[in-house]
Amino acid sequence: MTDESLPLVISAPEPRTLDLIFTPAAQAELRRTYRIVEADPEDIAGLGDAVLGEARYIIGQPPLSAETLVRMPNLRAILNVESNLLNNMPYEILFERGIHVVTTGQVFAEPVAELGLAMALNLARGVIDADVAFRDGTELWGGEGNRSARLLSGSEVGIVGFGDLGRALNRVLSGFRAKIRVFDPWLPPSMLREAGVEPASLSEVLAMSDFVFVVASVTSENRGFLGAEAFASMRKGAAFILLSRADVVDFPALMAAVASGHIVAASDVYPEEPLPADHPVRGLKGFIRSAHRAGALDSAFKKMGDMVLEDMALMDRGLPPMRCKRAERETVSRMRSKPVSVN
Amino acid sequence: MTDESLPLVISAPEPRTLDLIFTPAAQAELRRTYRIVEADPEDIAGLGDAVLGEARYIIGQPPLSAETLVRMPNLRAILNVESNLLNNMPYEILFERGIHVVTTGQVFAEPVAELGLAMALNLARGVIDADVAFRDGTELWGGEGNRSARLLSGSEVGIVGFGDLGRALNRVLSGFRAKIRVFDPWLPPSMLREAGVEPASLSEVLAMSDFVFVVASVTSENRGFLGAEAFASMRKGAAFILLSRADVVDFPALMAAVASGHIVAASDVYPEEPLPADHPVRGLKGFIRSAHRAGALDSAFKKMGDMVLEDMALMDRGLPPMRCKRAERETVSRMRSKPVSVN
Amino acid sequence: MTDESLPLVISAPEPRTLDLIFTPAAQAELRRTYRIVEADPEDIAGLGDAVLGEARYIIGQPPLSAETLVRMPNLRAILNVESNLLNNMPYEILFERGIHVVTTGQVFAEPVAELGLAMALNLARGVIDADVAFRDGTELWGGEGNRSARLLSGSEVGIVGFGDLGRALNRVLSGFRAKIRVFDPWLPPSMLREAGVEPASLSEVLAMSDFVFVVASVTSENRGFLGAEAFASMRKGAAFILLSRADVVDFPALMAAVASGHIVAASDVYPEEPLPADHPVRGLKGFIRSAHRAGALDSAFKKMGDMVLEDMALMDRGLPPMRCKRAERETVSRMRSKPVSVN
Amino acid sequence: MTDESLPLVISAPEPRTLDLIFTPAAQAELRRTYRIVEADPEDIAGLGDAVLGEARYIIGQPPLSAETLVRMPNLRAILNVESNLLNNMPYEILFERGIHVVTTGQVFAEPVAELGLAMALNLARGVIDADVAFRDGTELWGGEGNRSARLLSGSEVGIVGFGDLGRALNRVLSGFRAKIRVFDPWLPPSMLREAGVEPASLSEVLAMSDFVFVVASVTSENRGFLGAEAFASMRKGAAFILLSRADVVDFPALMAAVASGHIVAASDVYPEEPLPADHPVRGLKGFIRSAHRAGALDSAFKKMGDMVLEDMALMDRGLPPMRCKRAERETVSRMRSKPVSVN
Repeated sequence: MTDESLPLVISAPEPRTLDLIFTPAAQAELRRTYRIVEADPEDIAGLGDAVLGEARYIIGQPPLSAETLVRMPNLRAILNVESNLLNNMPYEILFERGIHVVTTGQVFAEPVAELGLAMALNLARGVIDADVAFRDGTELWGGEGNRSARLLSGSEVGIVGFGDLGRALNRVLSGFRAKIRVFDPWLPPSMLREAGVEPASLSEVLAMSDFVFVVASVTSENRGFLGAEAFASMRKGAAFILLSRADVVDFPALMAAVASGHIVAASDVYPEEPLPADHPVRGLKGFIRSAHRAGALDSAFKKMGDMVLEDMALMDRGLPPMRCKRAERETVSRMRSKPVSVN
Repeated sequence: MTDESLPLVISAPEPRTLDLIFTPAAQAELRRTYRIVEADPEDIAGLGDAVLGEARYIIGQPPLSAETLVRMPNLRAILNVESNLLNNMPYEILFERGIHVVTTGQVFAEPVAELGLAMALNLARGVIDADVAFRDGTELWGGEGNRSARLLSGSEVGIVGFGDLGRALNRVLSGFRAKIRVFDPWLPPSMLREAGVEPASLSEVLAMSDFVFVVASVTSENRGFLGAEAFASMRKGAAFILLSRADVVDFPALMAAVASGHIVAASDVYPEEPLPADHPVRGLKGFIRSAHRAGALDSAFKKMGDMVLEDMALMDRGLPPMRCKRAERETVSRMRSKPVSVN
Repeated sequence: MTDESLPLVISAPEPRTLDLIFTPAAQAELRRTYRIVEADPEDIAGLGDAVLGEARYIIGQPPLSAETLVRMPNLRAILNVESNLLNNMPYEILFERGIHVVTTGQVFAEPVAELGLAMALNLARGVIDADVAFRDGTELWGGEGNRSARLLSGSEVGIVGFGDLGRALNRVLSGFRAKIRVFDPWLPPSMLREAGVEPASLSEVLAMSDFVFVVASVTSENRGFLGAEAFASMRKGAAFILLSRADVVDFPALMAAVASGHIVAASDVYPEEPLPADHPVRGLKGFIRSAHRAGALDSAFKKMGDMVLEDMALMDRGLPPMRCKRAERETVSRMRSKPVSVN
Repeated sequence: MTDESLPLVISAPEPRTLDLIFTPAAQAELRRTYRIVEADPEDIAGLGDAVLGEARYIIGQPPLSAETLVRMPNLRAILNVESNLLNNMPYEILFERGIHVVTTGQVFAEPVAELGLAMALNLARGVIDADVAFRDGTELWGGEGNRSARLLSGSEVGIVGFGDLGRALNRVLSGFRAKIRVFDPWLPPSMLREAGVEPASLSEVLAMSDFVFVVASVTSENRGFLGAEAFASMRKGAAFILLSRADVVDFPALMAAVASGHIVAASDVYPEEPLPADHPVRGLKGFIRSAHRAGALDSAFKKMGDMVLEDMALMDRGLPPMRCKRAERETVSRMRSKPVSVN
């Protein structure tokens, strides 16, 4: 039996589920602290005025109309656990009313950074091809097998995008004494310097790096901004590692740059997912493939629930949310990442 | 024409060569600063009293007899660039006379640490099998492909051996907020604490780690000290990464522990090198193979020459060598690593 | 002659001046990029509709009425360079319209942290009294003079408040291997853990620390929250260092705790400033005094101008400000720090 | 009753005592593990052949003759807890026989570094004079009192000498984002780079630093090497902080440089200790005085005993000592620090 005095939370976390994003202990705490109303995300309006009128939080990002929001006078926050912002609610009204829209994408930062680092080290040392050759009995021993091997330590690294993912990359790179240049037009240069990296233009990042990591979100302005010219400007033999969204690159141009031997590359994301069986990237030498697996770890999903609980606890006490990332009035309409349909 | 007033250096760096271990600039400096006598390592005694009498340094570790050493009154140091200490010279006499015997194995620390980290991340995320599956069109997308994936960040890590390799590993792990336990019976616990790691027994390291890195040298006492019992004591699913010498493990027991699914593993070293074409490790699931490639990078070899030059410069000024690692009277006879025959 | 197409900025930075907060180069850039209208802060309404209608930014925090704001349709941000938020404008309207109110108090974080560290080390080692005794010829030599001396390295440290100041303190403490506990009820515990500190209750921070740093802002809820009981709960001989505002402590109780010998203390702030000539803190043994000098360095003021320029550049491009700190709808009315009248 | 099978240790730690350098627990462990023979340091030879013949270690640095050493066939190490090496034993014989001579001076590194940092911050911010003025009622408030104040963060720092003290300084400076240049002619440049500092000449360190820390030992070659010319080459207003031995500077020249207003300074050491009551440094403006108190903390002395126990434990197992610092054959006779007579 639920305590009617508990604050009311509408649960519509699709495509996530509460079981995916909360550990059993966290979900128990959620249910102990709040009245949870599980809702059909396609019919929030149908919940009735009693529920809408009391609702303090929505977990999820169901479509919402201006009319429905009028019926929700106590709403304080929409906690988006999908993490890409859809254009399915009147954000301007939410900002006016001071209803926070927050996302939990930070949970993917560590998993993505670790996979990105693995890719960089694998490209630098030919780890995958060497293991495959060893299986086949064609391995080369010692220095023979290291003709093109090189170190990440002491190298020059470029990072495109310095949000949560870029910061996590910077952290896992901290033991490598690398010189790290960052391009992020949404941040003031002094904040990059405070993080210990060097602010740089995109062309500097491309031309002066041994390893380039791309962790920029797709926006209405940067679709396909990394094309043939960008790859041509990279150092011969440099590594290009794509971790955010395929839409920021011209994928055929990337494959061509690798096929020509100018650069090596790795990617976790593709123009189509899943990819056709005959897609040429499958057989491309000098390319490491990962099937959109960088972030989707169970431990990452479980952190979403922790973040949601921490921020709701702050808001329950009249404080602003600090743990999740808030959507910004200026940029919410610029974000163009496709939502995921599978976890 | 050589300046006869320059200090004399006997060059016998086999299996290395001066061209391997010195950059052109460093070799030019070497030849500008010293008279280099290139010697047959098997016949140092045949060099004649003029050369032996003047020799200040030997680069290499040629066999030396007590009689030959008597003829070398000005010898200050033997700079061993193979880096494993052979039992081919009367070390006791060298120690008595204060002739330094130094090795340059530290050059391999960073390359080995980077490969070790790559192996750990690959095992944690199934990176290699995922790429191979992608080539075949059998890849799993998103969370589907991450059933057993986990993070290094925040995990518990064990390191066996805390010499140059262990320290380099600790450094590349510094961005991962891991709890790191170290077993090294040759170091006082307080020095491990000062390095930010937790001193631990071997059994603690094995039983309490998600990732175990073995970077211990082979000594007369530790041959095969990691066997079936050790692997059984590890956590289910933990990763065992062997980077130093195969002789410290019972290799068949390691393979059995992986084959049973209890642990996953990676190794750069093998009981025989090269390995027979039909060796079962070639097809072993849950095992990453590298053909003794961890250290042998060209950039590492070139650092040897730099180290040699720096320490000879100190000794030229009457100071002790600080850059290379000195052989110790107590332990020189305990070291049992097989020398390499190829670079 | 000013270019009429430049964005218009109203300058009302009192008690600062543009010369105080901008370097000559930065001020030149400001005047090259914007049309600056220097205004009487007490009469913004009198500027006329032409200026108000075009104004994009206000530098300063002049009183503003709702009526005046209606006349400013293009206003994007109020850049408060005093840094304490006064209750002299209708914040709710500003939040509704998405007009950012930002402060530049972060510039004081490093200077305050450095002085706080100096105070902690001085208290731990009796540095000031030792120098004064040396001047007088009554110094004690060597261990004689170190009876109560102790290290910060390896000690337990507590920080109350983890905004910019707390974070800067944590950074300057990073080389001391101290265990750092933090009390900050406005932050989720996981964010403190990510910063490498341990979240703790106020009573834990007080009772388990060798050094307690107070950098919390005054709010409507925490006035005088550190009183006799708090000081009594501290470790015998521990150091209490007050760096934010005197209103968070019961100052007579603090003096009594020091006078009794239970703790030692240092403060940069006082219930009255300046302090009467006969105030007892002037002669108090075990107390280090600083006359509100912690933050007010010229280099800090000059950073204000840099921050203002960086954020206006972002907003000019339609992006949100990232460099300065934004006032929060939930907390703006809770802040109670007295504004400064002198720089 | 002592177990006659325990290894024998001769105790002659003057001017230290066992109670000074061992905690009660450590001394209990010492006595549980070893037979301790407390000896008159001036008459080791008088101990008798039974004791001399069995002695494995000496704690202290009593005078020893070649003849006495002949009677000590089982001696493995002399553990010098005074930490300055006197010329009172035949070091050459000790080196030939492989008897380690080790010192425990590293215990002073952290205390000295912390005091050095306190001095730097005090000089940068005028902390001491400000407190003295506050006692007198002549304090200046806010920016008024900060006319010459500056930050350590982001400054340029020079360190002369990079032994244990220099490294400890580098560590406590790690949170300050300072550019650190080091002059140490006994270390190869690459080791300085690995420690994250920039190798530099003495004149570069002097001319390019805002803060210069001197932690170099006195040797036969460097007596008085920092004189009027050195101070004149420093930046106007820079801070000179002397922490090792007064003999490395021309002390009157240092005072003159401060008196002229060219630099500010602090010192823990003096040409005579104690210093005459009328010595002019007592009243010198711009100078911070400490009466050789930098290292002599009780916690530092107690660490000596821990170091001794850890290294004896290694040597008991046939391993070389790793915790204490070994005297070097090349440099032992160059060291010229005066021994201390008080702790």
